[in-house]
Amino acid sequence: MHNVLLGLKQYDLDISAVVAMTDSGGSSGRLRDQLGVLPPGDLRQCLVALSESPEVWRKLFTYRFGSGELGGHSFGNLFLTALEGINGSFRKGIEQASSLLNIKGRVVPVTYSDCTLCAKYEDGSVIEGESDIDRALTKRPRIDYMYLTPEAKLNPDAKKVIEKADFIIFGPGDLYTSIIPNLLVNNISGSIAESKAKKIYVVNLMTKKGQTDSFGVSDHIYEIEKYLGESFLDYVLINIKRPEEKLLSWYEEHDNVVLVEDDLGERYVTEAQIFRGDLLSNVVYEQNVADRLKRSLIRHDPEKLAKMLMSIIDKAKS
Amino acid sequence: MHNVLLGLKQYDLDISAVVAMTDSGGSSGRLRDQLGVLPPGDLRQCLVALSESPEVWRKLFTYRFGSGELGGHSFGNLFLTALEGINGSFRKGIEQASSLLNIKGRVVPVTYSDCTLCAKYEDGSVIEGESDIDRALTKRPRIDYMYLTPEAKLNPDAKKVIEKADFIIFGPGDLYTSIIPNLLVNNISGSIAESKAKKIYVVNLMTKKGQTDSFGVSDHIYEIEKYLGESFLDYVLINIKRPEEKLLSWYEEHDNVVLVEDDLGERYVTEAQIFRGDLLSNVVYEQNVADRLKRSLIRHDPEKLAKMLMSIIDKAKS
Repeated sequence: MHNVLLGLKQYDLDISAVVAMTDSGGSSGRLRDQLGVLPPGDLRQCLVALSESPEVWRKLFTYRFGSGELGGHSFGNLFLTALEGINGSFRKGIEQASSLLNIKGRVVPVTYSDCTLCAKYEDGSVIEGESDIDRALTKRPRIDYMYLTPEAKLNPDAKKVIEKADFIIFGPGDLYTSIIPNLLVNNISGSIAESKAKKIYVVNLMTKKGQTDSFGVSDHIYEIEKYLGESFLDYVLINIKRPEEKLLSWYEEHDNVVLVEDDLGERYVTEAQIFRGDLLSNVVYEQNVADRLKRSLIRHDPEKLAKMLMSIIDKAKS
Repeated sequence: MHNVLLGLKQYDLDISAVVAMTDSGGSSGRLRDQLGVLPPGDLRQCLVALSESPEVWRKLFTYRFGSGELGGHSFGNLFLTALEGINGSFRKGIEQASSLLNIKGRVVPVTYSDCTLCAKYEDGSVIEGESDIDRALTKRPRIDYMYLTPEAKLNPDAKKVIEKADFIIFGPGDLYTSIIPNLLVNNISGSIAESKAKKIYVVNLMTKKGQTDSFGVSDHIYEIEKYLGESFLDYVLINIKRPEEKLLSWYEEHDNVVLVEDDLGERYVTEAQIFRGDLLSNVVYEQNVADRLKRSLIRHDPEKLAKMLMSIIDKAKS
């Protein structure tokens, strides 16, 4: 998501980032990007990505106070808390944050309802709370379905944005904890179905341990369309550039994740138009191999992603 | 100081605010302005005053977290701490803060030396630390002299700013804890004397309990010129508009402070040109008298101050 926004904001577009608010934000392992760390929480990542000074705010939002009673508190959290405090509401706090970060476009929470993300697995077991779902790394059965408890009301601002959109882009991002949580909010699939917007899905590069192990492209598309319910994807973007083998082995050994296999040739699952291309980031920061493997991450490249998205957008418009 | 900067930033001037860093910033009683509260610390007040969105940042910088382990921590403090942390130095942290607050001009610490402000009283007693000096409300003997321990090195950026200035404005502000601390830094009086800048002093409206009790205008000027040492003030601005009697009685009863008496007619103390006028703020926020007395403060008016300062600046330039 971060990389889509970083890339697209270079173009003359009116961007709204609709974000799930179920992200408990505690986990940090999955948050590293090539530059180091991304702030926890989809909301904060989108604010930073759309900011005109993303580097400063990325650093600020991920800064953690080192010692004393403040030890471990993240600045980003305190910043949003203070803005909520002085503005009297979370909504106005986000507006103020958007203005202080000088963001291009807007960040819109999908809901203001206080709800918990839950996963029901195929063996009937349930895990409540995003961070617990993320921690269930050795979970064997697949997720049967996701839901929110209690039900969440669609934020009217998000509804407006969706209904007026020309394009809705899903992903890349954690399937069950970043993308699908948006689709669990009451009436959102209706709003998406009613909108004339074309729906674009950027498939993840890697699987996610405990959640999408052994998922191919087709599984990803199937899951998204299952929660979309009344509508289907129009375009799907798939990376075909293979990362270095050493990097792949490192990922498999250390994180138990593998490339999402492009299995669309075998299993026909979608009416969507498929776009394939090199969407892979080449950024490598360290000089020796050991360091590079530690620091390199398999990520989408913001510019390549944006170029492919823009070619779809321009073609669909004309 | 806050009101001078608020007023002057409306004009086409290149403003540098040189600030003392000895402010321990703990006291809050003296920090209220007409709008509510000013952030503790000269540095933070100047950053806020010069910001293009002073209202938001004033609120943010004075926001205190209400509960839990963060209770009582001020956002302003955490913000500057985080910026110092991500930039690796306090100096770069301030530069970054200046850019994020979108300030007009710059804020320059007079020193980066870690030093303590000390007051030696006429009875030989000594109080170390600005907050302790501020708390010595019933101190009877006058302050004999102020000093820093250990000695403080003049920040080269402050030296440059002083030497290139056309005008140096002192005050208004706490004589012994905001203005004079700047003049205690090593070599600064030499830099001021060498600078071709005209020196303007805006005399405080009210005395300060425990420090300038019964001080008239002449005492204020005498003290400043004592620490200037090698040079003298060129212009002095004095308010002649008398605040409401009710407000004055309230101040005297509650804070034991009175108007600084304009005694220059009786005691000739300066070569400076004297400018007198209505510099008083009229802002009154509350409707009933009791509330109004509680909320009204005797303060300089930013616009009136800036107008008088600009008339001096324009005349001196032509």
